[in-house]
Amino acid sequence: MSAPKVAVIMGSVSDADVADKAIEVLEEFEVSYEVGIKSAHRTPNEMLTYAEGLADRGVQIVIALAGGSAHLPGMVASSTSVPVLAVPVRRSQRGHGDEAMKSSIAMPPGIPLAVFGDNAADRAALFAVRVLGLKDDDLNKRYQQSQQEMADAVVAQDQSVAELGWKEFRNN
Amino acid sequence: MSAPKVAVIMGSVSDADVADKAIEVLEEFEVSYEVGIKSAHRTPNEMLTYAEGLADRGVQIVIALAGGSAHLPGMVASSTSVPVLAVPVRRSQRGHGDEAMKSSIAMPPGIPLAVFGDNAADRAALFAVRVLGLKDDDLNKRYQQSQQEMADAVVAQDQSVAELGWKEFRNN
Amino acid sequence: MSAPKVAVIMGSVSDADVADKAIEVLEEFEVSYEVGIKSAHRTPNEMLTYAEGLADRGVQIVIALAGGSAHLPGMVASSTSVPVLAVPVRRSQRGHGDEAMKSSIAMPPGIPLAVFGDNAADRAALFAVRVLGLKDDDLNKRYQQSQQEMADAVVAQDQSVAELGWKEFRNN
Amino acid sequence: MSAPKVAVIMGSVSDADVADKAIEVLEEFEVSYEVGIKSAHRTPNEMLTYAEGLADRGVQIVIALAGGSAHLPGMVASSTSVPVLAVPVRRSQRGHGDEAMKSSIAMPPGIPLAVFGDNAADRAALFAVRVLGLKDDDLNKRYQQSQQEMADAVVAQDQSVAELGWKEFRNN
Amino acid sequence: MSAPKVAVIMGSVSDADVADKAIEVLEEFEVSYEVGIKSAHRTPNEMLTYAEGLADRGVQIVIALAGGSAHLPGMVASSTSVPVLAVPVRRSQRGHGDEAMKSSIAMPPGIPLAVFGDNAADRAALFAVRVLGLKDDDLNKRYQQSQQEMADAVVAQDQSVAELGWKEFRNN
Amino acid sequence: MSAPKVAVIMGSVSDADVADKAIEVLEEFEVSYEVGIKSAHRTPNEMLTYAEGLADRGVQIVIALAGGSAHLPGMVASSTSVPVLAVPVRRSQRGHGDEAMKSSIAMPPGIPLAVFGDNAADRAALFAVRVLGLKDDDLNKRYQQSQQEMADAVVAQDQSVAELGWKEFRNN
Amino acid sequence: MSAPKVAVIMGSVSDADVADKAIEVLEEFEVSYEVGIKSAHRTPNEMLTYAEGLADRGVQIVIALAGGSAHLPGMVASSTSVPVLAVPVRRSQRGHGDEAMKSSIAMPPGIPLAVFGDNAADRAALFAVRVLGLKDDDLNKRYQQSQQEMADAVVAQDQSVAELGWKEFRNN
Amino acid sequence: MSAPKVAVIMGSVSDADVADKAIEVLEEFEVSYEVGIKSAHRTPNEMLTYAEGLADRGVQIVIALAGGSAHLPGMVASSTSVPVLAVPVRRSQRGHGDEAMKSSIAMPPGIPLAVFGDNAADRAALFAVRVLGLKDDDLNKRYQQSQQEMADAVVAQDQSVAELGWKEFRNN
Repeated sequence: MSAPKVAVIMGSVSDADVADKAIEVLEEFEVSYEVGIKSAHRTPNEMLTYAEGLADRGVQIVIALAGGSAHLPGMVASSTSVPVLAVPVRRSQRGHGDEAMKSSIAMPPGIPLAVFGDNAADRAALFAVRVLGLKDDDLNKRYQQSQQEMADAVVAQDQSVAELGWKEFRNN
Repeated sequence: MSAPKVAVIMGSVSDADVADKAIEVLEEFEVSYEVGIKSAHRTPNEMLTYAEGLADRGVQIVIALAGGSAHLPGMVASSTSVPVLAVPVRRSQRGHGDEAMKSSIAMPPGIPLAVFGDNAADRAALFAVRVLGLKDDDLNKRYQQSQQEMADAVVAQDQSVAELGWKEFRNN
Repeated sequence: MSAPKVAVIMGSVSDADVADKAIEVLEEFEVSYEVGIKSAHRTPNEMLTYAEGLADRGVQIVIALAGGSAHLPGMVASSTSVPVLAVPVRRSQRGHGDEAMKSSIAMPPGIPLAVFGDNAADRAALFAVRVLGLKDDDLNKRYQQSQQEMADAVVAQDQSVAELGWKEFRNN
Repeated sequence: MSAPKVAVIMGSVSDADVADKAIEVLEEFEVSYEVGIKSAHRTPNEMLTYAEGLADRGVQIVIALAGGSAHLPGMVASSTSVPVLAVPVRRSQRGHGDEAMKSSIAMPPGIPLAVFGDNAADRAALFAVRVLGLKDDDLNKRYQQSQQEMADAVVAQDQSVAELGWKEFRNN
Repeated sequence: MSAPKVAVIMGSVSDADVADKAIEVLEEFEVSYEVGIKSAHRTPNEMLTYAEGLADRGVQIVIALAGGSAHLPGMVASSTSVPVLAVPVRRSQRGHGDEAMKSSIAMPPGIPLAVFGDNAADRAALFAVRVLGLKDDDLNKRYQQSQQEMADAVVAQDQSVAELGWKEFRNN
Repeated sequence: MSAPKVAVIMGSVSDADVADKAIEVLEEFEVSYEVGIKSAHRTPNEMLTYAEGLADRGVQIVIALAGGSAHLPGMVASSTSVPVLAVPVRRSQRGHGDEAMKSSIAMPPGIPLAVFGDNAADRAALFAVRVLGLKDDDLNKRYQQSQQEMADAVVAQDQSVAELGWKEFRNN
Repeated sequence: MSAPKVAVIMGSVSDADVADKAIEVLEEFEVSYEVGIKSAHRTPNEMLTYAEGLADRGVQIVIALAGGSAHLPGMVASSTSVPVLAVPVRRSQRGHGDEAMKSSIAMPPGIPLAVFGDNAADRAALFAVRVLGLKDDDLNKRYQQSQQEMADAVVAQDQSVAELGWKEFRNN
Repeated sequence: MSAPKVAVIMGSVSDADVADKAIEVLEEFEVSYEVGIKSAHRTPNEMLTYAEGLADRGVQIVIALAGGSAHLPGMVASSTSVPVLAVPVRRSQRGHGDEAMKSSIAMPPGIPLAVFGDNAADRAALFAVRVLGLKDDDLNKRYQQSQQEMADAVVAQDQSVAELGWKEFRNN
């Protein structure tokens, strides 16, 4: 059985709602994935072992979610040669702010970590689709088609405003 | 003639020092690249035309540098299906702060842009190496070897402290 | 048919409530306007074409709304000689903060972009009225009259406090 | 004698270096201007009297520079119907940061004030040129020509990189 | 009729709730006061005239409330020799943050303005009581008594915890 | 009667909910404690006297909670040789932000104060357990056991995801 | 011998340069003063004893300087009924930022503390002059005269620009 | 041979100057220590193995220095039951700001990490002295003596000002 293309990992199930945003995109583009709960702080050994095995298992890209001090993405990036995408999680109910973003963005020289916006797991998944599309023409075509559909939707709205006038458009 | 694997672009030659950090890494790993000066604000048409042609020319990944309001990385990501890496440029002499980072990180849903630390073009280039290594076993092996060398260097320093004692180590 | 004096553009209909604040002012002062939905990230070509045509069509001033990384105002200002007013949109439900403001205010040398407060589309529209009033004495007079009415309202409240006393004033 | 088109005012001669950036642009485009030193805090009456007389004297646009709590631009905007452009001054030697920007951007409803980047008096002056160009075709043409020259310079650099290669380009 | 000792002024009745916090303290200590609505931006002339007359009328201290760009406290301090206390108003519903505080704290050399915490009109009023107590022994004694009562309340709570134990204390 | 091992103190009973988070941990590990209400600003003398007596009474560690300007932890640390742990309290309803954290973290040379996250009294209590465990093998063992239980819980969740699949796991 | 009117206190002689800014103003206006070095953290008892004796000795106003966590101004305000002015000290060489300001501005209800800009001991001293001028007509007159001189200096500069023209003015 | 009481670890020798501040204090108080170079990102396995062995070797307290994303202190705290003190390193030359502080302070529930000011390794070492003093009366006495000497130095300066007068004091 071949390994899934993408690994989506989080430090705590409290981040599952953010993870779902990535998974929804991966399913839309029919990209295989696995999900793991790996805590940098509570299961450091399990996390390292998992990260060290990613390349041999054939995983192509990792999406790592973490809030607060957010050590998971950086530690995984340190223990693999697979590209790692960090999604800082901002949890309003815990009073957390930009710590996860800052912890992810300030990695030291030599350890590449690609960072996306707070909670923007969907954008990270789209980035994964772009990377995988470099080797998969069919996936790439489907991705380009989705880009065109986004553009068409905006153009349609713009034309609708032009035809109806702003107030009529607003009242619909 | 095949296209280079990586495009390194910047909005202004004033960012050339930061670009050099990426290029040094690409040359170390013998990854082909091209360099472009494309200004989102001064040459918007040229920038869009360039971005739209990237995929057909076979470029695999883009490293886009920009400071200040930093529209270049996001605009290029909007006009291609190739993965784009943003490197915010922080220029102390212009009194600029975190604007470039914020402008890059806050992209809208649907437009993936991978962000690296301020001026961290070297880390973006290492990330590009990881991505290209997914299709290039030899490159991947050379990358893993460089990871091991980084680790060895730290271990050697640690042993040196243990053997010499801190003060002796500091005096060397 | 002559072109409208003001173009109000936004990147997404999710900013329509902010746009309405500008439109209400323009209608109060009977200034002609058009509304467009132009996304820097989803329809970059349509946006540029639109911006490049503004001057020839006789549009006098542009009010551009955008949230998040907010590339729309700066990209339009880069592709026209018409004055462009940026209104950063702050959307609390997306967890966004000051990114749009920072992205707008940090434009490079050579590209003028006038920035107003977060969501302050009404103030941008009043600024447009001032600019158009430079060539339209009747409009200018109506604007000055509205300034006087604002002042009169404050003076009336102040006198009301003086006559009634603070507590009585508060109980009304 | 007709009034100058633009008034450049500052609260203190310590901001003269920033004012010079505006004046250099105005002179480049041969726009008439006057310079005034009007302190909101030290000469509040003189400032108000000056602001109230701007419209009758035929001044078309005001560029107001101020650092620290930066009350000058807002107070002048409150006392005239002429468009006012605020240039927050950031003075590193006084330890000041973003106060001037924040004070300018947070004006109340009803008082339009167009804000530019810290110390960006040159961009404010270019904006004034755009506004004046609405009534002055010759000025507008010269402005568009300067835009083209900026674009040409970037394209020339880009071609130079393409022809010479990055390293050769850097060594020149 | 002698003038009131304290003037409480605000730029807009929308700040009345904050003003009430000062007035409650002034009434508790039986200090005479007047309330004015003076807008720096909508009624600049009325504001200046009012400020210039404060000293001759015998007003001893001014508490000036203002949110957003908050020009009122600084402009009044610039036009009188009476001590002025600034209370920055933070209005969550307008999305405003620390602008009022920054605008008040960054006054230029030569113009003293005493700043209190956001919305802390009660603390400004207590400060006014301290100042007036320098000339009014009876007021000073009543103020010191209120300090002692605050201390006694804390000591009583601490003893209550010691006697009851924390859990029993919490359950009361 | 021997003194309790830990003193939990706060400046105001309004911080009792945060204090409870520490107390819950101390009770879980059966560590003796006392609770005090000591206000740096309302009962400065009582606070100092209390702090000066801590060492002689045999208290081993202090957990000091404070919000706003948060002088309590630093003042207590200045008046004892016992280790002091600061827990900044962030109270959303008072509009306070990071003041308490900043006031605690910026202590001068010579006065050690260990700082924990906003409202993180539970983590401070766990730190106290670690310190006390240095002299108490039984306590240390119970602490290590709780660490293992945390790890086991994460591993169990991870296995549950692996067995059920993400969607099934989410639906439970 | 009567007590001095103003007490200027600091926590460390490293703040002496900032203190000198206050003392220069007090000497200019011939206001009596005393200087004390009172450390909240190193000499908490001496600080409290000093603060408690201020009112009985007849000191009228306190200017308290402190950097970092800046507990001195708030602790003194807590232990006296005399008005206390806080001057946060920002020391660039220690990497400190806005901690002192935040610690001073976020005092709890009931403890009034008037805050001035970072290092703005001169403005605090001018505020003290305003307060003392409420009971001292001669001092008040000298203060108003200094206000007029500040205004005259600005008017003179403005006239100089008008007469010479900007460029000639700049070349002088 | 017994283990040293304190372990001082850092991720990179570039932090050696900060480490020296801790070591100077430990030597002053004759506390045994060891120094290690353990990189969370370059040698994750070595770091974990080291952390897991601390308790068995009898190390009593860890001082962990780290800048940037600063994962070292948190990862070590996650892998030991020994108390860990984090010293965020702020490196001006790398443009880093508060990332290390934020990454350290925002640890998740269950993982205690005591944080000290940026680069404040000396204060962390003094805290270690306090903790070790709980079991070592002689060390505790020497620590209390050093506290008294700090106080005496301030009192001596204060008396010197009182005797000499401020100006004379300043001229010495």
